[in-house]
Amino acid sequence: MKRCAAWLADHLRGIGLNGVKVVPTKGHPLVYGEWLNASGQPTVLIYGHYDVQPADPLSAWRFPPFEPTVRGDNLYGRGAADDKGQLFAHVKALECYLRGSGDLPVNVRCLFEGEEEIGGTTLDLFLRRHRQALAADVAVVSDMPILGPDRPAITYSMRGALSLELEVCGQKGDLHSGNFGGAVHNPLQVVCEILASLHGPDGRIRIPGFYERVREWSPAERAYMGRWGPSDSEILGNAGGEHAWGERGFSLYERTTIRPALTLNGIVGGYQGPGSKAVIPARAVAKLNFRLASDQDPREIEELFREHIARITPSTVRSRVRATAYAQPSLLPRDHPAMRAAAVAYRKGFGADPVFLRVGGSLPVVNSFQEILGIHTVLMGFALPDDRLHGPNEKFHLPNLFNGIATSICFMDELAKARRGGKKRIASKERAGVLP
Amino acid sequence: MKRCAAWLADHLRGIGLNGVKVVPTKGHPLVYGEWLNASGQPTVLIYGHYDVQPADPLSAWRFPPFEPTVRGDNLYGRGAADDKGQLFAHVKALECYLRGSGDLPVNVRCLFEGEEEIGGTTLDLFLRRHRQALAADVAVVSDMPILGPDRPAITYSMRGALSLELEVCGQKGDLHSGNFGGAVHNPLQVVCEILASLHGPDGRIRIPGFYERVREWSPAERAYMGRWGPSDSEILGNAGGEHAWGERGFSLYERTTIRPALTLNGIVGGYQGPGSKAVIPARAVAKLNFRLASDQDPREIEELFREHIARITPSTVRSRVRATAYAQPSLLPRDHPAMRAAAVAYRKGFGADPVFLRVGGSLPVVNSFQEILGIHTVLMGFALPDDRLHGPNEKFHLPNLFNGIATSICFMDELAKARRGGKKRIASKERAGVLP
Repeated sequence: MKRCAAWLADHLRGIGLNGVKVVPTKGHPLVYGEWLNASGQPTVLIYGHYDVQPADPLSAWRFPPFEPTVRGDNLYGRGAADDKGQLFAHVKALECYLRGSGDLPVNVRCLFEGEEEIGGTTLDLFLRRHRQALAADVAVVSDMPILGPDRPAITYSMRGALSLELEVCGQKGDLHSGNFGGAVHNPLQVVCEILASLHGPDGRIRIPGFYERVREWSPAERAYMGRWGPSDSEILGNAGGEHAWGERGFSLYERTTIRPALTLNGIVGGYQGPGSKAVIPARAVAKLNFRLASDQDPREIEELFREHIARITPSTVRSRVRATAYAQPSLLPRDHPAMRAAAVAYRKGFGADPVFLRVGGSLPVVNSFQEILGIHTVLMGFALPDDRLHGPNEKFHLPNLFNGIATSICFMDELAKARRGGKKRIASKERAGVLP
Repeated sequence: MKRCAAWLADHLRGIGLNGVKVVPTKGHPLVYGEWLNASGQPTVLIYGHYDVQPADPLSAWRFPPFEPTVRGDNLYGRGAADDKGQLFAHVKALECYLRGSGDLPVNVRCLFEGEEEIGGTTLDLFLRRHRQALAADVAVVSDMPILGPDRPAITYSMRGALSLELEVCGQKGDLHSGNFGGAVHNPLQVVCEILASLHGPDGRIRIPGFYERVREWSPAERAYMGRWGPSDSEILGNAGGEHAWGERGFSLYERTTIRPALTLNGIVGGYQGPGSKAVIPARAVAKLNFRLASDQDPREIEELFREHIARITPSTVRSRVRATAYAQPSLLPRDHPAMRAAAVAYRKGFGADPVFLRVGGSLPVVNSFQEILGIHTVLMGFALPDDRLHGPNEKFHLPNLFNGIATSICFMDELAKARRGGKKRIASKERAGVLP
């Protein structure tokens, strides 16, 4: 990790960035570099990560994972796409400008971390500590796939998230189900009874007030989603499932993006090993994950959940709720100047208009930039759906690297043009929310 | 284990048993010895086990677990009560007869195993292979506590058992709950929904036909149970619980002995580690344990369960049921001649009439003797509730050892008297079922 960070910092120095440093942290170092000489122009924060997933299982690789190998149009290697290759498209775009004109059209801060794959806290700590010094107008992240080599896409909406643990405790210790089965309320059974009651037969979440703030989208917006978004059968295909399920009256694309969901991720308690063990566990814990739609607030949902659980917990047991993670829903207006700049850049770089996509997940870094720095993020992916991120034989499609460099070049140019054109300042600290 | 088996065999030879041998098996050896010279008298199969639980945690022991130490009335050591001490009461009773009169009043086969604590299969294989050679009229097992030093007890009823796994499969692989939450039916959630539906608010099991064969006991029998059995508060106290739960209209003693129960022992599926993981598992497995009342049949209940699960599984997923263990409910009539002999023997040995108890669990060895050899088992415990079986500082109350020896001596004598008194043959291959 240290060698990679040092190499990356040297490279940034070599192409002409200023103030380049490897920032030591309690975890893996951050790499920072800047170029702030475009007076009066917006500042772009380019984010990426130089850490990668483990390469296991090694036997499944066609080429050694840490010896980059080109075959046809592809470069094979761990991190080729996630995220070294995508990060590098921006670095090379900066190099083009600095070696050509010697100037960038906008101000740039590069911030590359080494803990993305392990969900480290180093980045957030650094952002909080240097909030002022890192001031920027917009962030750009290239760490996701587009739809195809000539089907670029920009993600503009992500759901929020709330992770919870629901603990139910009964008698003092584990009991033998032979001796006590039928006499005490099994906490594991109570967990099931509570969880089963949280969805109605209509697929809706049965917590009073839960849907109160969920934004209703206009027929025009839903028509746009229907026209450009994935179909039910595509989503089912990607899921490897045969049967759809969920809230009536919405497509699967809508159910996974503009509608909230509650997923049971796991249950701890009792016996999970091979064979059987006749135990009545003393306690059981369910791990739950809400995905929240615009304008739900994770802390408000937590409160509704707590109240509801307290109301429905049977008097035979005790229950407790712990929240373990929060993420606000995020939404970048499609008419935001940086989005327009990105759309034009993709058209020039890839020769095709990008599709604007909503996704059901949450990207923590987007939340960090929004909450700590108060800036929006443009999600400018260059990877392909079949690049096998996290898997053996990860690759990066080289035409996407070159188109990505071109897109990054054009993006900076378009941002500068928008400013020169007298458009309003891009930085927008108000909550994004208006769509065309 | 080998040294212990050899020592025990030598000891049996030393007291005068015949045909003593250490029987090698694929697992730990069996120890066998016999004395079959009481012509015309019944044959008693004395069962015990010479293996013990691990002694961990060693630091919690007052004395080294494998150096027997006497303090006051107690002998401390791993296996002191479970089951070396209790087994030894019978061995010493045999020695008394053989050193005294040189004869036993009944025929005796001793069969001691070394896999009781690990639930080994060696004993059942041996019983099946030597079914004829092991012919006996009744078995006696001393491997359980009585109620107190002067409160002997005989267990005469045990519930049956049926262990099952319910597997629910959905989409092909695990999914990210951000991307797909709300679009597919989570198999883990389905497991909860199915399990929650298996109990009604009245605490009864909601499987059609489930209660059809459950025997209704007479008011006299329930009054006996109420008078002599543990109270609700005793059972709750033993459970370390504060709140009773279960089928209305029955005491906790009844709920755990003459009424069936369904316990959820564990759920496998999804994420069980620390923190959270936003996964929609592709499959989930619930481990279930039924306890069955007289005259329920585990294979019939399995069939009812399979039919019910097939009926209620939603069309969005697939379900499968696997049975992993069966045990018939067992019941030794209180007026069985061997039970009468045991009651008289306890009165003489402990100076108090024994209480006849039902227990909610199942003892596999009792089922093996019933199913393979066709004989009943008298459960003649000598341990105390506070002997810390399986725990650190296990002990055996020495007055119980001496009273146990006396009880065993009297038991054999009473069996012989019953035969001499012209009573009907003790062996009863018909299903036990009549109570006074």
